[in-house]
Amino acid sequence: MSEKKLITPRKLAGFMELEPCKQLILNEMENKIKSIYEKFAFMPLDTPILELSEILLAKSGGDIDKEVYAFTKGDTNVCMRYDLTVPLARFVAMNQFNLTFPFKRYQIGKVFRGEKPQKGRFRELIQCDADIIGLDTLPLLADAECIKLADSVFTEFGLKIVSHISNRNILFGYCEGLGLEDKTLDILIILDKLGKIGKENALYELNKLGLTEAQSGALIDITLNSGDFGKVLESIKNLSENETYQKGVKELEEVYSYLKAYEIPTENYVLDIGIIRGHNYYTGTVFEMYMPQHPEFGAVCAGGRYDNLAGYYTTQKMPGVGVSIGLTRLFDLLDKNDMLPKISPTNIKLQIIPLGDTLTHCLKLQKYFQTQMVCDVNYDARSFKSKMNSANKREIPFIMIVGETEVESGKYALKNMKTGEQYNLSMEECLNKIK
Amino acid sequence: MSEKKLITPRKLAGFMELEPCKQLILNEMENKIKSIYEKFAFMPLDTPILELSEILLAKSGGDIDKEVYAFTKGDTNVCMRYDLTVPLARFVAMNQFNLTFPFKRYQIGKVFRGEKPQKGRFRELIQCDADIIGLDTLPLLADAECIKLADSVFTEFGLKIVSHISNRNILFGYCEGLGLEDKTLDILIILDKLGKIGKENALYELNKLGLTEAQSGALIDITLNSGDFGKVLESIKNLSENETYQKGVKELEEVYSYLKAYEIPTENYVLDIGIIRGHNYYTGTVFEMYMPQHPEFGAVCAGGRYDNLAGYYTTQKMPGVGVSIGLTRLFDLLDKNDMLPKISPTNIKLQIIPLGDTLTHCLKLQKYFQTQMVCDVNYDARSFKSKMNSANKREIPFIMIVGETEVESGKYALKNMKTGEQYNLSMEECLNKIK
Repeated sequence: MSEKKLITPRKLAGFMELEPCKQLILNEMENKIKSIYEKFAFMPLDTPILELSEILLAKSGGDIDKEVYAFTKGDTNVCMRYDLTVPLARFVAMNQFNLTFPFKRYQIGKVFRGEKPQKGRFRELIQCDADIIGLDTLPLLADAECIKLADSVFTEFGLKIVSHISNRNILFGYCEGLGLEDKTLDILIILDKLGKIGKENALYELNKLGLTEAQSGALIDITLNSGDFGKVLESIKNLSENETYQKGVKELEEVYSYLKAYEIPTENYVLDIGIIRGHNYYTGTVFEMYMPQHPEFGAVCAGGRYDNLAGYYTTQKMPGVGVSIGLTRLFDLLDKNDMLPKISPTNIKLQIIPLGDTLTHCLKLQKYFQTQMVCDVNYDARSFKSKMNSANKREIPFIMIVGETEVESGKYALKNMKTGEQYNLSMEECLNKIK
Repeated sequence: MSEKKLITPRKLAGFMELEPCKQLILNEMENKIKSIYEKFAFMPLDTPILELSEILLAKSGGDIDKEVYAFTKGDTNVCMRYDLTVPLARFVAMNQFNLTFPFKRYQIGKVFRGEKPQKGRFRELIQCDADIIGLDTLPLLADAECIKLADSVFTEFGLKIVSHISNRNILFGYCEGLGLEDKTLDILIILDKLGKIGKENALYELNKLGLTEAQSGALIDITLNSGDFGKVLESIKNLSENETYQKGVKELEEVYSYLKAYEIPTENYVLDIGIIRGHNYYTGTVFEMYMPQHPEFGAVCAGGRYDNLAGYYTTQKMPGVGVSIGLTRLFDLLDKNDMLPKISPTNIKLQIIPLGDTLTHCLKLQKYFQTQMVCDVNYDARSFKSKMNSANKREIPFIMIVGETEVESGKYALKNMKTGEQYNLSMEECLNKIK
């Protein structure tokens, strides 16, 4: 052993690892999300972290994105999952004949993205996803339910969020109406970055695509519509007669009626035509949640409707809608801004410190208190003083000192570490005092 | 889309994936383990799933065991963790100046082992580990606490287990006492499989090592000692005067005194000298838990004491003791033997079925019931009959049918799906009936 060269202990960059008292808080947040998802009758699913590359990379025809952790084991090409949506698609395609639809599942688990490590970016992320999958059809109430779900989670956290909601048919249809259907995707890429690059640059880029000034201006104008859901909806509903556009309007109207029925406070959501959600698989309702007091956090939650979740694996049409909370990133942002829920850095309510030969008696006391609270016996060999220091440092609220005299008398020295008060009480009295 | 070749949806062999109603049960078991670990004042830790190969494979000097999922990303050699102990060692070595000792942590998470898929073997396993790490020293009460912990978990599960406990110093010292110290490891390998290969074959193999008949016989005799902790301890305590042997006896005596103080029922643990725990890092107390009614399950939980957890990463001596429950394997065994706790295949208590244009009213009812139970609105477009069938199949206990007449009268049709009884009640009366 003594000859051995030591290896400097370290972890990979971009992987969050919390000290246990912070982990307690993260677990608490995870539990709250889980309990709200379950309250809305979502059932748990846990898919493997590793999947066949052929399955996970079906979208890219098996091509490995550089962000994906992919490797070969034996003669099998495998990937670590980079989201929870593709595994869900695989799962429902595999189990379509055993599931009852609409299938409401949640999954809380880690996903892996091998991006370059940079501030605020993680390679291992806990995602908290809830999705509703239909067979052939799925009513629009499901879209509203996902928004309600996210709103309930953040309300439970005591965090103010605003859900920015749109429907992709609006901009798709608007482009169609302008006769620009073959340029729609390029247009959306530009409009998606409107907030970042500004109106001037967006105009320039749209014109470069071959749009007229009028077309570019109209597109930017409609994209900038954002605010009270009912008012914005009223103001845009006749901006285009295009069929797809009107489909978007109808869908937004229906979703709006459900948001009201769910009694989500009206200040908690807006209609925001600028919500585009990149060039991904969404086909209808799309939404992103922001914290108005912290726009710099970006979207802390997002989701939307997809028409055909499992299209790579089955001909059975399965429309779905889902919402995803990026817990790792959210926790990191809250932590850095001192916004984490305040909870004690320990779960220990009472620590028993044995003095002299009283250890076995202390274990009996521990058993008694454990029925009501987390109770620990400090059996460390260190000095009494260092034990008191460590209890202080860990902010343990109560200490019980048990020497031989105490065992004989049945009266124990209980100390309230916050106030400094000390009592001499029986076991039962100690329990009452602590409670 | 129509031209696209479909990929058959499938998952990797050896990876457990449960249907949601079974996942509910697994989650319930995981929660119980977690709550007992926390009750004993263990704090949560969550280390990354990926680690640097140099760190994780320090033991083998960086050599990749074929069971480890290892690969290169960019120019970094990484591994998926194959246990939770090595990451713990890395963590305590990295954070030794910030932690308070004894450091009690639990970690529940997945580990990965790329072994050949075979019946009952998994490549992705949920491990539930609890360890206690000391600085320089760690009292033997910690060993007893780990055994108590496992006993509490299985008691909570309603499963009968017996903890088979030994101390490696017994057989180490016994070999030393026989002058066989240079052959100890080879001897232990043979004695470890005594139960499998039988006395005859073990004798033959020991003799082949160059032991005398008397030595081999004595080693087999002592290894076969198993039974009531106090009685076996009494009967073996003078079998060798060797110092290491006597250290083992003393340690077992002390651990025994704590097991009694913890009031673990005596039928729940035995002293079993045959517990060796392979050729691994354990140095003192070792234990394996078996289900006496199901010896074919093998050890469902195991652990022990290691003298120097983080020796590859730091010169600071950190003795530890830990216990690990292999939840994936345990769940699989219980499932296959129809021994899983019986819980409802759904968490839904009440499902509201809207008839006609009553959806928004149903959402208000849902909100009312959700304060007390999991309540779902079935907004599926399918027929009423198919909704009733699906509720039946999912074993949802109560159904509430809400048509326009019900909305007007404020009296709803509530159906108990088990008994078939149907009521006509107000919202409040429905709540009372269900509760």
